[in-house]
Amino acid sequence: MSKILVTGGTGYIGSHTVVELLRAGYTPVIVDNLVNSNAGVLDQLKKITGIKPEFHNFDLCDDEKVNQFVAEHPDITGIIHFAAYKAVGESVQQPLKYYHNNFFSLINLLNAYAGKPVNFVFSSSCTVYGQPDQLPVTETAPVKKAESPYGNTKQIAEEILAETAAAFDNYHIVSLRYFNPVGAHESALIGELPLGVPQNLVPFITQSAIGKRGPITVFGDDYNTPDGSAIRDYIHVVDLAKAHVAAIRLLEKGNPKGNYDVFNIGTGKGNSVLEVIKAFEASTGVKLNYQIGPRRAGDVEQVWGDVSKSSQELGWKAELGIDEMMRSAWKWEQYLKDHPLA
Amino acid sequence: MSKILVTGGTGYIGSHTVVELLRAGYTPVIVDNLVNSNAGVLDQLKKITGIKPEFHNFDLCDDEKVNQFVAEHPDITGIIHFAAYKAVGESVQQPLKYYHNNFFSLINLLNAYAGKPVNFVFSSSCTVYGQPDQLPVTETAPVKKAESPYGNTKQIAEEILAETAAAFDNYHIVSLRYFNPVGAHESALIGELPLGVPQNLVPFITQSAIGKRGPITVFGDDYNTPDGSAIRDYIHVVDLAKAHVAAIRLLEKGNPKGNYDVFNIGTGKGNSVLEVIKAFEASTGVKLNYQIGPRRAGDVEQVWGDVSKSSQELGWKAELGIDEMMRSAWKWEQYLKDHPLA
Repeated sequence: MSKILVTGGTGYIGSHTVVELLRAGYTPVIVDNLVNSNAGVLDQLKKITGIKPEFHNFDLCDDEKVNQFVAEHPDITGIIHFAAYKAVGESVQQPLKYYHNNFFSLINLLNAYAGKPVNFVFSSSCTVYGQPDQLPVTETAPVKKAESPYGNTKQIAEEILAETAAAFDNYHIVSLRYFNPVGAHESALIGELPLGVPQNLVPFITQSAIGKRGPITVFGDDYNTPDGSAIRDYIHVVDLAKAHVAAIRLLEKGNPKGNYDVFNIGTGKGNSVLEVIKAFEASTGVKLNYQIGPRRAGDVEQVWGDVSKSSQELGWKAELGIDEMMRSAWKWEQYLKDHPLA
Repeated sequence: MSKILVTGGTGYIGSHTVVELLRAGYTPVIVDNLVNSNAGVLDQLKKITGIKPEFHNFDLCDDEKVNQFVAEHPDITGIIHFAAYKAVGESVQQPLKYYHNNFFSLINLLNAYAGKPVNFVFSSSCTVYGQPDQLPVTETAPVKKAESPYGNTKQIAEEILAETAAAFDNYHIVSLRYFNPVGAHESALIGELPLGVPQNLVPFITQSAIGKRGPITVFGDDYNTPDGSAIRDYIHVVDLAKAHVAAIRLLEKGNPKGNYDVFNIGTGKGNSVLEVIKAFEASTGVKLNYQIGPRRAGDVEQVWGDVSKSSQELGWKAELGIDEMMRSAWKWEQYLKDHPLA
């Protein structure tokens, strides 16, 4: 079956996508430099799927290594490009680190495939919408000025990809705009491995519940939302992983919309921070400790996606709900306590 | 005196800036890979100034060479970064070439100066304004979505520079937004050397006048302007070169506005295409052959800059008028005919 290069394939979304690619009969080939992930994930993937995927440890910012890899893998027909730095706050402190890593890797990959027909799926983000004027937000909503260098790298990458697809026929590209990925594989063998203090709600919840962190802070309860806390469209990472397989399939059969397209990948429903806390408590039976704090700079009030285009044109939709997201995230946190990955 | 790295220093604006730096007592050090310029310019610079500037031929996209250069030149205190691809039309055909070259060179340079105090002057462009809502356009006008990958690299570079200056104290940065540079040095020893068919009006005029090209096409005479042709703010390249010296001086004494700032570099006056044609004829006595053609995709109707900020805060203003621009451009074209640079 088709070989698919998965950059960042040992990361959170990458590893779940490798599982779904294997289940769908694809042969994933992982490239990762392990700066924000763990080689132990490869053994976990074998436990889940029975297969230890081909793995190459190098930095995609090194164009010679990228070119060598591409020359040695002429049978790769698709790329799912996850590899990127992703911490909003760090990107404000270290913008060059983000522009360097996220641009060089993307541009080196695209250059290495010059003239070679390739299906390319890019990890974009709903951050491109900022605070949308209308909800749910559709793919045609205007892209707003990014609040951080991280967000800017996603916006600019989309522009680079659209212009590249317009100029060259060999690139068939889809950008997936993720909403908020949470949860873990049902096996609890892979999941999110945040570096340091989690900046996202769900890993903070599970670490607080297990005693690794103190009380959860709800950043703002005075937003213009029903319960005053901010609203996001949480999407189970396994559903998100499946969206990548759907995107590769769309590109393989030929996207009637052309060489470049964009899809929202969410559930289409919003949950407030307080609702997520309650859902965690209800689905796990674990009581959480939380306090209300001030709003966090750069956070938007509420966002959730219109997913009708994904459903109609990608043939994909999210199946797992908030309870399953919480339950699987908690199972993973408990697994990690006894089985630290190394 | 201070050593200033001039990237792209053998190019059109770069070479004129090298002359003005030498005149102002600076020691320019040129880095250029000569892909769009000519090593013969170095001899011309010696004829004008008596000094052949230090020159290094390498590609700034090669981070090891950049790091080595910076390590070997610890006495450089300022950078004027001209090196970039600049052809709008080509950038639409070859976007990756533009993103690769213009981003990698910029980011490699900035990374190489991590932690080292440095004054940095960036070549930006009035293309960031698109068609402004108000004229003359001020530096606070909104940046509009770029019409080409070339324009996008300028916009994004400004964002990278602003975010870098915000995050790190060692970078003191000014972006100069050029309007339309034309003309040549009064010695006629350096000037613009367009590759292939000139995409800009003035080099097309001079090549048409000397018989290298057929009649000039005026792209559109149905714009909403007094004579129907498009209006631009033409700036003499020698005035533009002097703006870079003024920017280095501002950064050396410390810009009270902070670590990042932006200036319009134009005359503050607009001239229509038909006015430029008439000015050329009047100041040179050479009759031009021209015809009216359709508008060109991507061209804005009219733009000229408010240059009061440059005048007040940079202490710089343009001194040479349209006649001097035409006269010097024509003198250079005639010089080139007898002295092709190699």
